[in-house]
Amino acid sequence: MKPLSDAILNSQKSAIRKLFELLIKSSDGISFGIGQPDFTSPDFVNDEIIKALKEHKTQYAPALGLPTLRRVVAQKFQNENNMKWVETENVMITNGGSQALQLCFATLSNPGDEMILSSPNFLSYIYLASYYHLKLVEVPRLENYAPDLEGIRQSITPKTKFIMINSPNNPTGYVYSKKQMDKLVQIVLENDLYLVSDEVYEKFLYNDHIHISPASYDEMAERTLTLNALSKTFGATGLRLGYVSANKKIIGMMEKYGQYTTAGVNHPTQYGAIEALMKGNPDMPQILQSYNKKRLFSLKRLKELQFDTIEPFGAFYIMPRLNPKWDMTSEVFSNELVKEKHVACVPGNGFGSYSNNSLRISYATSDELLEEGFNRIERFLKKKSLI
Amino acid sequence: MKPLSDAILNSQKSAIRKLFELLIKSSDGISFGIGQPDFTSPDFVNDEIIKALKEHKTQYAPALGLPTLRRVVAQKFQNENNMKWVETENVMITNGGSQALQLCFATLSNPGDEMILSSPNFLSYIYLASYYHLKLVEVPRLENYAPDLEGIRQSITPKTKFIMINSPNNPTGYVYSKKQMDKLVQIVLENDLYLVSDEVYEKFLYNDHIHISPASYDEMAERTLTLNALSKTFGATGLRLGYVSANKKIIGMMEKYGQYTTAGVNHPTQYGAIEALMKGNPDMPQILQSYNKKRLFSLKRLKELQFDTIEPFGAFYIMPRLNPKWDMTSEVFSNELVKEKHVACVPGNGFGSYSNNSLRISYATSDELLEEGFNRIERFLKKKSLI
Repeated sequence: MKPLSDAILNSQKSAIRKLFELLIKSSDGISFGIGQPDFTSPDFVNDEIIKALKEHKTQYAPALGLPTLRRVVAQKFQNENNMKWVETENVMITNGGSQALQLCFATLSNPGDEMILSSPNFLSYIYLASYYHLKLVEVPRLENYAPDLEGIRQSITPKTKFIMINSPNNPTGYVYSKKQMDKLVQIVLENDLYLVSDEVYEKFLYNDHIHISPASYDEMAERTLTLNALSKTFGATGLRLGYVSANKKIIGMMEKYGQYTTAGVNHPTQYGAIEALMKGNPDMPQILQSYNKKRLFSLKRLKELQFDTIEPFGAFYIMPRLNPKWDMTSEVFSNELVKEKHVACVPGNGFGSYSNNSLRISYATSDELLEEGFNRIERFLKKKSLI
Repeated sequence: MKPLSDAILNSQKSAIRKLFELLIKSSDGISFGIGQPDFTSPDFVNDEIIKALKEHKTQYAPALGLPTLRRVVAQKFQNENNMKWVETENVMITNGGSQALQLCFATLSNPGDEMILSSPNFLSYIYLASYYHLKLVEVPRLENYAPDLEGIRQSITPKTKFIMINSPNNPTGYVYSKKQMDKLVQIVLENDLYLVSDEVYEKFLYNDHIHISPASYDEMAERTLTLNALSKTFGATGLRLGYVSANKKIIGMMEKYGQYTTAGVNHPTQYGAIEALMKGNPDMPQILQSYNKKRLFSLKRLKELQFDTIEPFGAFYIMPRLNPKWDMTSEVFSNELVKEKHVACVPGNGFGSYSNNSLRISYATSDELLEEGFNRIERFLKKKSLI
């Protein structure tokens, strides 16, 4: 048989999904692995989808999305993200944040272009680069997981097409400061680059940290692609409803590419999204309070267990480094942990080339499971005489 | 600003969508343009989606789709398409037939590979080829829109990776015969190729024509990718629910690619799909009876209006050639028709390089609109003194 796609053969199945599959074989498994909140979409969102289904709105929606939803998204970007330039024509509705990402990569890339990414980072960016025949340039994060902005500047070549950011970040929980964003914007402008900003965790912020959208800088309007989704904010990962803003020319290109690759988004779900984005998630303050408690508990336990821990201020992940004295790779650690104690943490090598000594822990689970999970990790470490 | 994606810049916005946009500006517009049936999804399907929403099934489904749905799809392929080899592990659920197609192109292709297509054909195949950096080899159909199988055989080079077919066909309505399928299968096997079979119109057959899935030939199991969707059979184009079968290795590659590019399919909709595929569309006999009437009416009117008409036996399209005496391209014809009489037909050049003298007419509209539309075309031709 003739050879299949090299790019796909060479990409790895998501370590997260692999772990999850291991875990579901055990009846008492605890997952610190999955990138979704522990709440589901609110009834007022689901009810609008139900209404649309009852009204038989099951034929094609426009490839760009329902005009009303696009307008509501534009208003959301204007009001919540201070992106005053965004109009309906700058918005496309997508099959989740993942398709929004795909559309950004598709429209910006020609084979051989280069893309710059702080590492560790979300795995999809790494494989999308290979699917679009981009050269991926990983710039290691600083010790505290801050982006190395000087390193990014120095990595730029004439072939660099765009920088990809994700703040608040999956997997590190790092949140760009205003000063860092100022500097990044300067780098992008000075080098005539594009910037793709994945903001799906924008609402998950702690300790008075704030979210800054790079597209809120006027001079960045033409060159920033901003993507977001209902998934994390509304506990709606399974609705696959995302959106992206960009300049009008790029949106036109996304429309074409979208027509031929997915032909639009589930029609009834778009009515739920209108309601969701108009009202926001009213439970967010309580959710954040609860997640902050989980975050602080996880930090405390990881320090007690002698991990090298960096406090995260965003998302719902924490990415401790293994104690160098343990002399274990993250892959070995997480494999043995899941086998012996049925606790799944994602090994750091699932997030790029510079995190083989760390784990990603999602603390978006119940307090009871969080406590039990850390207790099992403690027993695991003690049994191995590591602490 | 640096250059954007050549492949997307060079692709055209769908002529169908463009026409539709022109048409919605007129209050009395009649569309013969849209590729969707004139019925919506049955209540028994929508009710299952509603139930899932009420049960808050709004978190991630597995990237391959719900196991139960995959099993039901495998049974459907076994029972309805005589593809006895298909098991759950050979099935992936997709965001409509369009994403199923994208996954086929993504997994089979390396840049520079060649793909063979009978022309005219569905536009997405043409642009997907360019997005995946394939060389597209269009083999013109015979006078009666049959595939030129000898022409296909002669177009094969060492770089040919796969043949793409769509029977019943959009836009011609052509249906492969058993004899033609036998020959195609022989060509694929003799040349160690893959075959992608888009079967979304399988249920729309007239005059006792039958649908033959190439993957029903045992020796084709390993090398045929078969895609289908709820869209046409269930009037559910807006639910974006498709599925694909292939050998296990390819499904594994599709899972990876899908994880990084869309991360699965709307979760509640998958429960509707289970019900849909288990029960089938009980209205299909009446729908086909009604569509056959529309088909025969359209044929009669087109002949009266002196189009060069080939009888279609599948799908819900008819693709007449313009009378050579009129000396008009299909683009000029359809543009003037929509402007002067507010009737939209898709110009043939939207379906490849060999159909600039034809129109695609979708007869999946009400009898009243069909009659009025043809009356307007008649007045249009008479006003121009063409008939």
